[in-house]
Amino acid sequence: MRLSELSDRGGVSVATVKYYLREGLLPAGTPVTARQSAYGEEHLRRLRLVRALLTVGGMTIQQARDVLAVADDPASGRHERVSVAAYMLGPRISPPQTSDPERADWDEVFAEMRDLLAEMGWRVSDGAPALTALTRAVVTLRALGYRGGVDHIRRYAEVMHPIAAEEYAVMEEYPVVEEAIEAAVAYTMLYEPILLALRRLAHEDVSARLHDTAPPDPPLSSS
Amino acid sequence: MRLSELSDRGGVSVATVKYYLREGLLPAGTPVTARQSAYGEEHLRRLRLVRALLTVGGMTIQQARDVLAVADDPASGRHERVSVAAYMLGPRISPPQTSDPERADWDEVFAEMRDLLAEMGWRVSDGAPALTALTRAVVTLRALGYRGGVDHIRRYAEVMHPIAAEEYAVMEEYPVVEEAIEAAVAYTMLYEPILLALRRLAHEDVSARLHDTAPPDPPLSSS
Repeated sequence: MRLSELSDRGGVSVATVKYYLREGLLPAGTPVTARQSAYGEEHLRRLRLVRALLTVGGMTIQQARDVLAVADDPASGRHERVSVAAYMLGPRISPPQTSDPERADWDEVFAEMRDLLAEMGWRVSDGAPALTALTRAVVTLRALGYRGGVDHIRRYAEVMHPIAAEEYAVMEEYPVVEEAIEAAVAYTMLYEPILLALRRLAHEDVSARLHDTAPPDPPLSSS
Repeated sequence: MRLSELSDRGGVSVATVKYYLREGLLPAGTPVTARQSAYGEEHLRRLRLVRALLTVGGMTIQQARDVLAVADDPASGRHERVSVAAYMLGPRISPPQTSDPERADWDEVFAEMRDLLAEMGWRVSDGAPALTALTRAVVTLRALGYRGGVDHIRRYAEVMHPIAAEEYAVMEEYPVVEEAIEAAVAYTMLYEPILLALRRLAHEDVSARLHDTAPPDPPLSSS
């Protein structure tokens, strides 16, 4: 196909396709004439993956290159290829410096969370960015004086695991690894706001049932 | 108690307490001398609520004032008082303008989501900001060519409802309405990153089990 068709089917502008080509994120097509190249289905697959990494995943060009390098490395397995992409998704949170007074709390919470997941039999890396994100959230919760006990966290973990397993099964339906990585990035990111919105709507429903009242009118000012 | 003790117990600086007093978010104390006032437990409760609205909830001063006005209005019921605060929580998303070409898709998705929740028996307002957020997320998902069918959304709704009900029960443990509002804001916001981090960790675990591999080393570059 021509570059214009590739752009159409990939859902990005011609200028964007050219930009990805220049940045080496998309391999060159096969030259047909001095000014035209032909592109195949593998270019389309790669284009969709790059779009997912950059626009949905919010990655930098360099992070996308790192993901593609692992995806293209014949030595890496499927789990590694998909996980590396997941590890690049934001928000990226850093632990406090060792000199930071908060660091003692941090280390304590980090160990608690790691032990909780280990006790549940979860196989996750100590370096998983999501473990850092979890630690950050629990440290904040407790610093503000709210309940963030291990039993509460365990309950959420128990609820999220089956849904994550179902989601993962969807990703496994893509035999081509590039498509699986694209699916992992897209579904991880795009379902996050869906999950959070449904939780808030469920709160509203629970409150309305409990107090047997009609849904409130939306507030008028500040909207 | 003195202002310094109020600041200590409320977990905010003296300057911040003074700022809240100036903005009328916190009622004045009882004058003791020309330069000192005494504050009671009701000031501490209000201070904690204001802190939750502004720092955890990310509200503007005006939004916090609106929430407090409803909280203080003897005519409003508990459901309304708590829901108004929930409605002010970000991110606030606006539907596309009626002239926007995306608007037809938007209206279709909005109707689908509203009908889905109605079919499930959820009592939520058409004006709920979370319904707008849900619509936005599903429109984006579909525009990019990913699956966002009603059956997928229903599954997430079914998973989130019981956990939302448990969370709501925690809020109901606070008999004083100000504390319930504070709890609603704090737990809604602060557990969101926990939920999302656990989902990502669960993906990693599912992948590791399925491919029977050790967790990956964290990526070295771009970190």
